[in-house]
Order: sequence, then structure tokens, then C-alpha cells
Amino acid sequence: MRAADELGALVESSLEELELTAELGGLREAMRYAYEAGGKRVRPVLCLATAEAAGSSAEAALPAACAVELVHTFSLVHDDLPALDDDDERRGRPSAHVAFGEGTALLAGDALLTEALRLSLAYPGGAVTRELTEATLRMIGGQYRDVTGDDADLASLHRLKTGALLSASVGCGLWAAGVPEGGQPSWRAFGDELGLLFQAVDDLLDGDGYAARLGEDGARALADEAALRAHARLAEVPGETEVLAGLVDTLAARTS
Amino acid sequence: MRAADELGALVESSLEELELTAELGGLREAMRYAYEAGGKRVRPVLCLATAEAAGSSAEAALPAACAVELVHTFSLVHDDLPALDDDDERRGRPSAHVAFGEGTALLAGDALLTEALRLSLAYPGGAVTRELTEATLRMIGGQYRDVTGDDADLASLHRLKTGALLSASVGCGLWAAGVPEGGQPSWRAFGDELGLLFQAVDDLLDGDGYAARLGEDGARALADEAALRAHARLAEVPGETEVLAGLVDTLAARTS
Repeated sequence: MRAADELGALVESSLEELELTAELGGLREAMRYAYEAGGKRVRPVLCLATAEAAGSSAEAALPAACAVELVHTFSLVHDDLPALDDDDERRGRPSAHVAFGEGTALLAGDALLTEALRLSLAYPGGAVTRELTEATLRMIGGQYRDVTGDDADLASLHRLKTGALLSASVGCGLWAAGVPEGGQPSWRAFGDELGLLFQAVDDLLDGDGYAARLGEDGARALADEAALRAHARLAEVPGETEVLAGLVDTLAARTS
Repeated sequence: MRAADELGALVESSLEELELTAELGGLREAMRYAYEAGGKRVRPVLCLATAEAAGSSAEAALPAACAVELVHTFSLVHDDLPALDDDDERRGRPSAHVAFGEGTALLAGDALLTEALRLSLAYPGGAVTRELTEATLRMIGGQYRDVTGDDADLASLHRLKTGALLSASVGCGLWAAGVPEGGQPSWRAFGDELGLLFQAVDDLLDGDGYAARLGEDGARALADEAALRAHARLAEVPGETEVLAGLVDTLAARTS
């Protein structure tokens, strides 16, 4: 069992060594710019920690973890484009389209998504790839609802936009660890609570979403309840879940 | 063995019946708008005809054929965006971003690509998905070269931008038909010639690319030679290749 920061270091070095398709040529620079920008690596660490908790090794889950992070990066690069959220900055640096131009950022996002799914084919049976494609489709559906302003049901919007990929991070870790479908429900329920926790804290930090809808206290209560339920779910799964439990506390307490 | 127009009708009805992920919500309308716009369906018909020539049935190759067409549609929707080719029209109708807005078109393209790869998971072993992801990455690399003006080597640019997906259409038909890798080289060489033929005729019709570089006669000669070599390759493969041979002639003689 490795600690979360060790898993994070594994993710960083694995991303650094990632071999992108040669035919992408100069586009690889924009892709690397986007995924080497850092960030908390919540999703890939969650994937690796799940695999270890389920009795496998982080190494076995590394391609899946990197694939999850590339899908996340693809979504950030496209969401930042002027046609969607029009964000000029990302993690304190110019967004990809500001640094490389809109056309290049668009293609870099496409290539990040495709490379992610290519990476996920390292696992036999297609389960990791299926998990990722389904989560990506739900995430895109969530972003579509968000930009078209159809946020009447905030919980279901977030379940799609943020929850789907967080939940898939757990799912990919399970498949990478060889956990059969029948053994996954409690783990997956944990992933769902983690998604809600993540989003509630995000909204508290940004002052929108749940924080705007429920007030600061309401959103804090929602986050705390999700954290409690996440811990309760972890207690049900067969495995050493200390690192995952630590991730829950870190996500509940994060300030950025 | 079914004729090309019968295969085309199969593709149309299969696309019409395609069940897109429910969570995409209203985005599905923009996706359908893009892929129901018609077009020649060259790639999916090529995929089905290859599967039948290799001794399988078109039905077995339908998910792969639809996946290829969705990847093609994704590329058109994104390439038409103002950040890339800025084309307001596609097949005589407003482009997706003109009809639905840029943000929706961007997300529709993302979803088309992801649905394509999800569809391709219908085949065991991941070979069809791998074929499609690798071709898509090469295609994106070609488009990147095209927009950044790095077209010094026109043949290799086209091999990426157009040839990769045409060649993958043959490849997906072979995998769907269960042809092992060792039996594929002549078929794949046929696919490569078809890609060159397609592009040379395209450039003749548009007056750019090879037509601009080699003159009209030069581009015509290039197309005719590629057609001859495609026929020669077909003569090498074990299978009933009349429909594929007919496709070569149709592509060589097309006027739109």
C-alpha cells in the first residue's frame, strides 16, 4: 500500500514518460502542455489507490490512471475554448487555446481523448475502455446541459459533469485489479459519494452551484454527509482502504 | 455478396436506428443532424464490402461500419468549425455549428468520436477499437499538419488526413470478418491505394492539393495509376472482390 503522495508521484512520472503517437507531430507539444500543467491528479490517484485497495498493484493500473487523466485533460482543453466556457487561464497559466491558438487546442483535445482510449486498450476484454467511453459520454452530456443552461436538476447535472469521471476512476481501478462486476457495487457506491463530495466542495470554493443553491452551510452539510457516506461505503468493501479513506478526508478539507 | 447500393442502404438504415447514449440529451439532435446529412458513405460501404469479400456477412460488420462513419462525421464537424476550416456549409446544408452554435457543434463532435469508439467495442479482442483509435490519431495529425501549413510532403499529409480512415475502413472490415493479421497485408495495400485514389480525385474536383501541385493531367494520371494498383492488389486477395473492384471504378470516375 502506497500513500497518496507516492501514488501522485507515480502518476507524474508515468505521464512524463507517456509516448504519444508520432504522427501527431507538433501537436504533441500542446497536448503535453495541457496534461503536464499539474493539478491535483485526483482521478488517477483515486484509480491507483482503488487498485491497490482491491489487492492489485498501482503499476498494473497505471495505463488506466493515465487514460483517466487524459480524458479529464481533454475535457478541460475543450471546455476552456471560447465556444464553451471561454477561460483564458487554467492552473495559473494561459489555457491551451491562448498558448497555442484555438485550432490547435481543438485538435489537441481530440487527440487527448483518442490517446486516452488507445491507452485503455492495454487491458484485455475492453472493460476499461468501455468504462471510459461511457463516462466520457455522460460527462459530455453534463457539459451540454451546463452550457445550454438546463440545470434545473443540479444533482443530476453534476452527477454527469463531474461525477461520471470520478466514478469511472474507481471503476477503472477495479477492472485493472481484476475485480469482477459482481464484486463492484459497494466500491462504485463509494465512487458516487466521492463525486458528490468533490462537487459540493468545488462549489463551496467557487461560490456557485450547490453553494449558490443551498447557501454555504447547506453545501458544507452536503459535503460532510457525502464524506460520511463515502467512509461508510469504504467500510463495506473487502480491502485495505486507509489510503482511500485519507483521500476522502483530503477532498473534504481541500481549499483549492 | 450484395451490391454497393444495397450496402449503402444497410448503412443508412443502421445509422437511422443507432441508439445514442441517453444522457447526451438534446445533443443527440446535433449529432444526428451531422451524420444523417447523407454523403456517399464511402467508408462504411468499403468496410461492409471488405467483410463480405473476406467471406463474412455485411451484418457482422455493421457496428464497425457505423463506427467508421461516426469518426468521419466527428472529423467533419470539428474541421468545419471557425477555429479550423471555417466552412459554413456541408453537403448543401448549414454546417453543424451554423445550425446549432459553436459550443454544441464542438460537444457533438466529441460525442460522435466517443460513441464511435463505444460502438467498436462490440467486437471482442479490441482490434476494431485499436484500428479506429490509431487511424483517428493519424487523421488528427494530418489535419494538424494541414492547418499549420506543413504540407511540404503532400503525399504523407494526405496519407494521414484522408488515407488513414479509408485504410481503417478496410481494416475494420477485415477484423469484423475475423481475418487474422497475417492474412491482411494485401487487403491493406489495397486500402492504401484506395486512399490515394480518393484524394487525387478529390483534389481534381476541388482544383487543389495534387491538382495544384501536379496539374490536372498529373493528378489524373496519379489517380488512374492508383486505381490500377488497387485492382492489382484486389487480384491478390483470396475472396470475391467484384464489389470492391466496382468501388474502385466508382471512386475513380466520381464527379462530386
